[in-house]
Amino acid sequence: MTDFIKTDKTRIKRLPKRGHYDRKTIYRILDEALICHVGFVEGRQPYVIPINFARMGDVLVMHGAKASRLLRHIADGQPVCVEATVVDGLVLARSVFHHSVNYRSVVLFGRGQLIQKDEQKLAALEAITEHLIPGRWQEARRPSRKELNATSVVSIEIESASAKVRTGPPVDDEADYSLPVWAGLLPIEARALSPLRDEQQADDVPLPAYIAHYSRKA
Amino acid sequence: MTDFIKTDKTRIKRLPKRGHYDRKTIYRILDEALICHVGFVEGRQPYVIPINFARMGDVLVMHGAKASRLLRHIADGQPVCVEATVVDGLVLARSVFHHSVNYRSVVLFGRGQLIQKDEQKLAALEAITEHLIPGRWQEARRPSRKELNATSVVSIEIESASAKVRTGPPVDDEADYSLPVWAGLLPIEARALSPLRDEQQADDVPLPAYIAHYSRKA
Repeated sequence: MTDFIKTDKTRIKRLPKRGHYDRKTIYRILDEALICHVGFVEGRQPYVIPINFARMGDVLVMHGAKASRLLRHIADGQPVCVEATVVDGLVLARSVFHHSVNYRSVVLFGRGQLIQKDEQKLAALEAITEHLIPGRWQEARRPSRKELNATSVVSIEIESASAKVRTGPPVDDEADYSLPVWAGLLPIEARALSPLRDEQQADDVPLPAYIAHYSRKA
Repeated sequence: MTDFIKTDKTRIKRLPKRGHYDRKTIYRILDEALICHVGFVEGRQPYVIPINFARMGDVLVMHGAKASRLLRHIADGQPVCVEATVVDGLVLARSVFHHSVNYRSVVLFGRGQLIQKDEQKLAALEAITEHLIPGRWQEARRPSRKELNATSVVSIEIESASAKVRTGPPVDDEADYSLPVWAGLLPIEARALSPLRDEQQADDVPLPAYIAHYSRKA
């Protein structure tokens, strides 16, 4: 896979050693993030909206109600920015100044379009469902004709993208290492807790393994 | 506390019953979210950048390096949109169509300015540090003159804001309730794991309780 070309929009200028432009790093973050944050402009006003999504190759897909402002805007082909971030923990330095967060984020740019064909809409909905929870598409009832008609599905081709990643322990000023201030990492993980069966469901429907062992880690 | 006035920018049009405009709901989400996502416009291009922040009353504060494009943009007073989302779990319905996410999100609009006075900068840095991990400001080494000079701190007055919240079990079509598809909630929580002491620190510095018992829940 080729790297994304660095552009003025995607080049990491602050702390450039944290910047990554290879598809493997960028796609892994996109695949792990549960939701993304879509930025668009209306008039001169920026908007940022959180939304579910999935990656299909070099394209992102999203869905929503036909009437959704966000979906209509993406379908219009206006420039959008999509950001997704996974937080890995707090970086607790001896000095306030060197406090940080270990994170992996992607910022990408592209333009969207409406997916028109049923077959492609269904493929995108499958990808979005499987991004949420792998294994689910095989089991849940698939969209009906009416549901498919009520749903807008859009794709965004990734024109340029970069990732920014911080890992590792705190880095303090030399003189601060002797301070008696606890320093290190506090890892944070988005963890699934015990599944809660719908009260309207009898106990004889078994809990599938893909729910019992859910994890967003690749 | 008065509610935020609904505006064309903040009114929840899709699923309006999920919309909230009271400061208590909005501020609780902002205080729980570790990071936010700032949208701004340069030319006609939208950008979305993740960043640490804190709320101080009706104002958000953020900090970064003097050279940061995001910080300069906020300091310029251009319109910005700030979004923050807490994910509470997956909503697993019997039908693909009714799958969802339980979440609490805030979208707010405002304009920023640079904080110039040292005293106000320090108060904002204290708020940002305490937002990250309450108790830390009292313990870590405070910013030096040089560090303070190298840091830009901006404030964004919240002009309008709304929250969107989904809670509760899946809601399926009546005919689907009898399907033998496991349905319910898979709660997800951003949890702190065991703290990892910096290898460059001796074991005689005790682990503070505010790290050992860290939780983002209010």
